[in-house]
Amino acid sequence: MESAILKISCRDRKGLIAGITNFVYSNSGNIITLGEFVDPETKLFFMRIEWELNGFKIKTRDLPREIGKLAEKLGFSDLWEIFYSDIKPRMAIFVSKYDHCLYDLLLRHKAGELKCDIPLIVSNHQDLKKVADAFKVDFKHIPSENKEESEKMQLELLKKCKIDFIVLARYMQVLSKDFVSHFESRIINIHHSFLPAFEGAKAYHQAHERGVKIIGATSHFVIKTLDQGPIIQQGVVSASHKDTIDDLMTKGRDIERTVLADAVKLFIEHRIFVSGNRTVIL
Amino acid sequence: MESAILKISCRDRKGLIAGITNFVYSNSGNIITLGEFVDPETKLFFMRIEWELNGFKIKTRDLPREIGKLAEKLGFSDLWEIFYSDIKPRMAIFVSKYDHCLYDLLLRHKAGELKCDIPLIVSNHQDLKKVADAFKVDFKHIPSENKEESEKMQLELLKKCKIDFIVLARYMQVLSKDFVSHFESRIINIHHSFLPAFEGAKAYHQAHERGVKIIGATSHFVIKTLDQGPIIQQGVVSASHKDTIDDLMTKGRDIERTVLADAVKLFIEHRIFVSGNRTVIL
Amino acid sequence: MESAILKISCRDRKGLIAGITNFVYSNSGNIITLGEFVDPETKLFFMRIEWELNGFKIKTRDLPREIGKLAEKLGFSDLWEIFYSDIKPRMAIFVSKYDHCLYDLLLRHKAGELKCDIPLIVSNHQDLKKVADAFKVDFKHIPSENKEESEKMQLELLKKCKIDFIVLARYMQVLSKDFVSHFESRIINIHHSFLPAFEGAKAYHQAHERGVKIIGATSHFVIKTLDQGPIIQQGVVSASHKDTIDDLMTKGRDIERTVLADAVKLFIEHRIFVSGNRTVIL
Amino acid sequence: MESAILKISCRDRKGLIAGITNFVYSNSGNIITLGEFVDPETKLFFMRIEWELNGFKIKTRDLPREIGKLAEKLGFSDLWEIFYSDIKPRMAIFVSKYDHCLYDLLLRHKAGELKCDIPLIVSNHQDLKKVADAFKVDFKHIPSENKEESEKMQLELLKKCKIDFIVLARYMQVLSKDFVSHFESRIINIHHSFLPAFEGAKAYHQAHERGVKIIGATSHFVIKTLDQGPIIQQGVVSASHKDTIDDLMTKGRDIERTVLADAVKLFIEHRIFVSGNRTVIL
Repeated sequence: MESAILKISCRDRKGLIAGITNFVYSNSGNIITLGEFVDPETKLFFMRIEWELNGFKIKTRDLPREIGKLAEKLGFSDLWEIFYSDIKPRMAIFVSKYDHCLYDLLLRHKAGELKCDIPLIVSNHQDLKKVADAFKVDFKHIPSENKEESEKMQLELLKKCKIDFIVLARYMQVLSKDFVSHFESRIINIHHSFLPAFEGAKAYHQAHERGVKIIGATSHFVIKTLDQGPIIQQGVVSASHKDTIDDLMTKGRDIERTVLADAVKLFIEHRIFVSGNRTVIL
Repeated sequence: MESAILKISCRDRKGLIAGITNFVYSNSGNIITLGEFVDPETKLFFMRIEWELNGFKIKTRDLPREIGKLAEKLGFSDLWEIFYSDIKPRMAIFVSKYDHCLYDLLLRHKAGELKCDIPLIVSNHQDLKKVADAFKVDFKHIPSENKEESEKMQLELLKKCKIDFIVLARYMQVLSKDFVSHFESRIINIHHSFLPAFEGAKAYHQAHERGVKIIGATSHFVIKTLDQGPIIQQGVVSASHKDTIDDLMTKGRDIERTVLADAVKLFIEHRIFVSGNRTVIL
Repeated sequence: MESAILKISCRDRKGLIAGITNFVYSNSGNIITLGEFVDPETKLFFMRIEWELNGFKIKTRDLPREIGKLAEKLGFSDLWEIFYSDIKPRMAIFVSKYDHCLYDLLLRHKAGELKCDIPLIVSNHQDLKKVADAFKVDFKHIPSENKEESEKMQLELLKKCKIDFIVLARYMQVLSKDFVSHFESRIINIHHSFLPAFEGAKAYHQAHERGVKIIGATSHFVIKTLDQGPIIQQGVVSASHKDTIDDLMTKGRDIERTVLADAVKLFIEHRIFVSGNRTVIL
Repeated sequence: MESAILKISCRDRKGLIAGITNFVYSNSGNIITLGEFVDPETKLFFMRIEWELNGFKIKTRDLPREIGKLAEKLGFSDLWEIFYSDIKPRMAIFVSKYDHCLYDLLLRHKAGELKCDIPLIVSNHQDLKKVADAFKVDFKHIPSENKEESEKMQLELLKKCKIDFIVLARYMQVLSKDFVSHFESRIINIHHSFLPAFEGAKAYHQAHERGVKIIGATSHFVIKTLDQGPIIQQGVVSASHKDTIDDLMTKGRDIERTVLADAVKLFIEHRIFVSGNRTVIL
């Protein structure tokens, strides 16, 4: 069943929900699901509404224009996005040498859990090419010696492959501000700690040293400042004095992959809104 | 800020959300939050919408009549309920001898977590009178020797105290069908297991014997068949071979009180819908 | 660092720990870890002790005989087992068509998490042969039309491959009593529910119908009565009214694989004791 | 059943466990439980052993002397402590105005969960006197205007009441280095965040601002540097964009009290060892 998904985030005002749902109804659309949130502090309004396109009176090619008109009328011009359930987002996966998150994403994709296309895997190492091959995904090796050069190549590749969003599946390189600006709120990273605890590298070493009784993982959007972007999802697992750093890493892999997969699913379903440095999930 | 909460559950059809939100908007209501769900199997539609009464054009005393008209127009006659944030639900707590859930509810109420009134505690034993006294809540001792007689007394008392809903906080008596029918979907019980595992009495003994590695608690509405009503909330905690039955009981008390408090909060906020033998929480 | 692991389960009596630790010490063994448990109900004693073989005075080939003498002296004859860290247990994986648990075990093995050998995958279908091939594990297709016949073939194969224990990674066949008797407390199954809730097939359908707010998975030893063997590990994840049966299955896959992997790790590390229908994990 | 509990932490060496268990056995003691741990990094050995005193040949009054001799022989002089199950530790609770942790500890004590005496509650405010009264515990109000003065009074009071350990149940004062030095590794604090995230005051405000999806609480020993002492226990609960700071506080109270109670139980059972800035729990 084909559907349209409209995301809106704008200043709250009376009549937004009525205006939007009436737009759908008066064009014979059947609402599948509607989520909304008003932030009591910022007075910002967030809405995700999905309706069946079967029987909907406005043609898909005309929909952006008609929503544009509606937006102007209701006062949320330029603060909306429209998606269609039959157009799968295109995801690029960036990896280095760790394979657990990559395998996890590819297996979930294979199992039908992730409704996206994966046309491209990029790595600064050759190691994971065989994994990409096994799942028949294009693998590009772009060494990281010259960051400026390699990011230029990456950006060209991403453009050529029409990539919508990037997942850093334990990619061990810091992206430049310029690179990030091309994919604002469209780069998802997995950090191997319960942020903001243990930012930076060697998070498990830090956790071990501090003697924490719970370790975690955090998926978040990448912004210019490392490990400080809006948090999408977090997960935890118990630890004890018996856990060596290796044990923590092993335990951590399980949460890392789950927490990353959760974020990817939410992104693909167009459920994540960025609000300042926080996310709203509808 | 005073608000109105409208709950609707009816057969799904196009235009329901638009019709309802437009009703609120056209009467100058500002929507605070809207939750909805369509069950893909039963095609039932559930909605909870809350809006500010400040500035709303329809007077509170006229609101039921006006919603009645709307309901007729949109086809959900008799399938709605209206609540007001400034009218607190009145809760009666039924207890026997265990005090942990009682204390928990009274303390949360005192802390402002439970926005309800507690005019009455009923028990088939005298033991917990002193707890009720400490929190200045009326305590009625109704012995359980003659169930018919005692239930009659209870019903009169509940009526007199204008009780909206009953919480069985480890009340060790089975209620009759007749009693339950007076408070359909308005009696919340806490069962000391992860239902449907270990129904009936001595759930921790059963759990211990089966050697489970996790124990749980379940809050649910009471229906005629014991331990089989719609589940509202469940919680779990780890167990091991080291746990004696006493240990399980101790661990269990923590989840029992949390899971019961969660259910009570959801009820008070008018978030629970019963759909067959399941609940929808909005 | 090579080590020996001694497991003992016998009737409790004074002097067991002293006698055993003294045996290790007086032969210059350095204890790495010692876990013990006395069941207050059954008065059974369980112990797992691991010590370094480097510098240990008794030769490995003489160790069983010497422990036999000790056991006779201390009264736990025939109630002990000895293992060596450099002899990896040999695991056979039985599968049908679901691949998530199989992939998970093979990936964990590849990552070094599971310190065992996997010489054999057995299936009643051809579907997962390519997964076995990708990980270079021998795959045997034994159709299940004639259970007696196929179990005979399986037993021969298991014997030939010197299999120590079997993991049923969502294997959709019921094993006969006779088959089970060959691998008592050495067949690990993953059941897709929080046992004892929802025994039998279609556990997610049952969970959906009952409207539970948490779903689970259970790894357990296989005994003659299906889904009733000693529980090794359990895990849970939240569910809601929004989850379809497919959603529950997707969520369930994550817990199934984690809970199964946990059980396999505990088995490989010789940490699981069976005590009646319960397990003791040291 | 009366028992003795011996705690040892010393440099690891061969023969410790054999020597100690043999000491118990040769004096006719029956071991109830034995936990041990060797830290692979520091090579430190930790052991907690509990045995029945019924039938034990050494008289309780002679036990310290005899263990002293054993310690000298085995090389752990001065690195052991002995406790008796029938001598309950004496706990003082320090509070300010928040009552949830205080109520929780008093209710658990009343329910028999905490096997300690509570002769004293100290507060810098009068507010919680009535809670102390309701549970018939002595309440001392010591205003905090002059820290030096008030700590002097507190120390005298603690001495007079023969207090073994102090629990800071949301006590909003920083203790001086001098005060802490009198109760080294015997002051337990509850911090309202998942340390090391959000140290200092207003942890829930910080968590809200950072937009975390999980909040936590941490119980730890107090050392001179605030919020940096050895962690005993941690707990977490999910959060979302919908949670206001008040919601986080409400959710937080539940974990705070559980995590604090866990730490208190572990302390009372003599299960916590401090090793550098980490804890070992046996």
